[in-house]
Amino acid sequence: MNAEIVAVGSEMLTPQRVDTNSLYLTGELNNLGVEVVTKCVIGDHLERLRDAVRHAISRSEILIVSGGLGPTEDDLTREAVAHALDRKLHYHQEIADALEQRFARLNRKMAEVNKRQAFIIEGATILPNERGTAPGQWVEESGAVVMLLPGPPHELKAMFERQCLPRLARIVPQLVIRTIFLRVAGMGESDLDQLIAPVYKKYVNPATTILAAAGDIQVHLRARCATVAEADTLLAEVAGPIELLLGDRIYSRNGDPLEAVVGDLLRQHHATVSVAESCTGGMLGERFTSEAGSSDYFVGGFITYTNEMKMAMVGVTPELLADHGAVSKEVAEAMAVGARRRTNSTYALSITGVAGPGAGGDSAPVGTTFIGVADAAGAHVLQRQFLGDRTRIRNFASQLALDLLRRRMTGR
Amino acid sequence: MNAEIVAVGSEMLTPQRVDTNSLYLTGELNNLGVEVVTKCVIGDHLERLRDAVRHAISRSEILIVSGGLGPTEDDLTREAVAHALDRKLHYHQEIADALEQRFARLNRKMAEVNKRQAFIIEGATILPNERGTAPGQWVEESGAVVMLLPGPPHELKAMFERQCLPRLARIVPQLVIRTIFLRVAGMGESDLDQLIAPVYKKYVNPATTILAAAGDIQVHLRARCATVAEADTLLAEVAGPIELLLGDRIYSRNGDPLEAVVGDLLRQHHATVSVAESCTGGMLGERFTSEAGSSDYFVGGFITYTNEMKMAMVGVTPELLADHGAVSKEVAEAMAVGARRRTNSTYALSITGVAGPGAGGDSAPVGTTFIGVADAAGAHVLQRQFLGDRTRIRNFASQLALDLLRRRMTGR
Repeated sequence: MNAEIVAVGSEMLTPQRVDTNSLYLTGELNNLGVEVVTKCVIGDHLERLRDAVRHAISRSEILIVSGGLGPTEDDLTREAVAHALDRKLHYHQEIADALEQRFARLNRKMAEVNKRQAFIIEGATILPNERGTAPGQWVEESGAVVMLLPGPPHELKAMFERQCLPRLARIVPQLVIRTIFLRVAGMGESDLDQLIAPVYKKYVNPATTILAAAGDIQVHLRARCATVAEADTLLAEVAGPIELLLGDRIYSRNGDPLEAVVGDLLRQHHATVSVAESCTGGMLGERFTSEAGSSDYFVGGFITYTNEMKMAMVGVTPELLADHGAVSKEVAEAMAVGARRRTNSTYALSITGVAGPGAGGDSAPVGTTFIGVADAAGAHVLQRQFLGDRTRIRNFASQLALDLLRRRMTGR
Repeated sequence: MNAEIVAVGSEMLTPQRVDTNSLYLTGELNNLGVEVVTKCVIGDHLERLRDAVRHAISRSEILIVSGGLGPTEDDLTREAVAHALDRKLHYHQEIADALEQRFARLNRKMAEVNKRQAFIIEGATILPNERGTAPGQWVEESGAVVMLLPGPPHELKAMFERQCLPRLARIVPQLVIRTIFLRVAGMGESDLDQLIAPVYKKYVNPATTILAAAGDIQVHLRARCATVAEADTLLAEVAGPIELLLGDRIYSRNGDPLEAVVGDLLRQHHATVSVAESCTGGMLGERFTSEAGSSDYFVGGFITYTNEMKMAMVGVTPELLADHGAVSKEVAEAMAVGARRRTNSTYALSITGVAGPGAGGDSAPVGTTFIGVADAAGAHVLQRQFLGDRTRIRNFASQLALDLLRRRMTGR
């Protein structure tokens, strides 16, 4: 079975925007064994949308249209799909009522335009939207299915997962897809590829994909087979040697991000952590607390952006700052030790560096970063020279700090 | 004049890859006054490609096809476009010779498959490739033009700039594009649209696009005219009433994010700021410090994730926590006042709330958030009930905190 994806919205035809919903949808469809054969972005234009829908369902069994379900006159997806299928739109009073109540719960009056969202294509199944106002629609037409999904990614994902996947599973022929999703810290992309390519290049199935971000590489292995046993055997054959080669640089085998892995380790150890951040300005704390339930182990932290705050908040001494500069091994160590003492946490992490683009006051080159960890046994500091812009340097630093704590806890 | 872009390649239909060539091409086409009305990604499949090309040139004057010009059997763009235009492919010995010489200069022997790249569509102009092996092609067909460009971005850009832009300039009517890019905080998308739609709906030119994220809405106005003066007059005619309606909810007129706008205000006022964050865990500090030069005004902050840290770091009293709970107006106020006192900053911002998905210890509902600001004149706290998941609630909270400070500084 083949699928096509149409993203609707003139804003996605500007030089600044890409459609990312299709990446999520493609991943989910691939997991069902469905290939995406075409994807398009169409502006808010009734005839172009209508024609795109007509062409797609004449060729493919599955069509997902995302966006254009909002309340404004630009939102033409409902009309366009109805025209393409030659069906009427019906007003559903119960949807309008539910919308009105939703607004009332927030002590707001519903704008009249929102009633546009109560129009449903004749014969369509209404897909409830738990995270927004626009309901989705599921329409079947002579062997093809068209899904209308809202554009905002968090709404689209929730709706696709709960409403569309179970329905798709019923109509898509079963093919088993099994994946292994390794995440690796502390290695460059080309070094990693050079190391493991001799293993995975021999196989088309499983397919191997390598994705790299600052300090974080993902290796996806994806096997498609008739049975689970067959897929798992194939995966093991390829993943085994790769895992041996990468060793303890692998921090996750299920796709969990590093903050989740470190959080789980802290929870297992009944340990707590605090942070003292300079150039990352709160990014490390933000990452720890992006995990639900992080209050089990994250107690808090200090954003010691200036020298004064390094002294006042975590007790770095003026002498240390004068002798070594704020971006130094000694100050990173003092920050970690000070944060730990003042929060009484099991572990403390510190980051001090030059994120750029301007050079640091200490004239350390942009990218110079010291990352410290402190626990009852003492403190340890890593020095790194990261390449890239401000965002990338800060991402690298927070990633390495998390990995330092992972290694400290696992004794690697 | 309208354009369409087709990116060719099955690898761009995986969950990991997006077509970025189209962003560059859209920017260049827009500069010529040409709108991109549709863009597609098509796999390496002859019939689908042929049909996509046919549909595109039946609707639009300009079609750019990128990728699929390589030497392998997967590279089908030449054949597909020839089929779509019902023209023959001709082998050009001089191209094959040039390729062979290119390989020889690198002391390599040309593989036989590379000769595929010497096939040119009947009547096409050959576009030399300075950075790779695949020549491009420029084909005119009854009022439409089709460009075949190589997929690698550095090859495509060089070829488009040197070979295509001068040719396009000759056939595209000269037009100027001018834009205004308003950013708005503290308003829902549908409320905003209801307010300003009566103004912008009257105009097709300028085109208006509305983009919404958590607590942040962007309104783009884009005018296409023969002269700069004409475009600016049209823009002023539409933007004027919109700006009056939105008033001080507009925080940026040049696309700058809120952290940059607030940073500039702090710099102008020679003021400093600190933060005390609970549920956002450092996100507000991270946003302040994402701006280069933020050390001019950002001194630091406290991530007071637990009650203990709220007491120890910013001096919230046990009585206040016991009487009102951690998620309360009183605690938000004490956090802001305490952070300001301990950092000696001009302003301090505080955030305490229930980001979910679990309910707060005080059994406040998920999304309940208090945001405080303190300065020499005292403190002020806003209460909000945000909707959405953990990420969205935290984004809303940090956005509103920044906007609260903006309003405090501008007296609005």
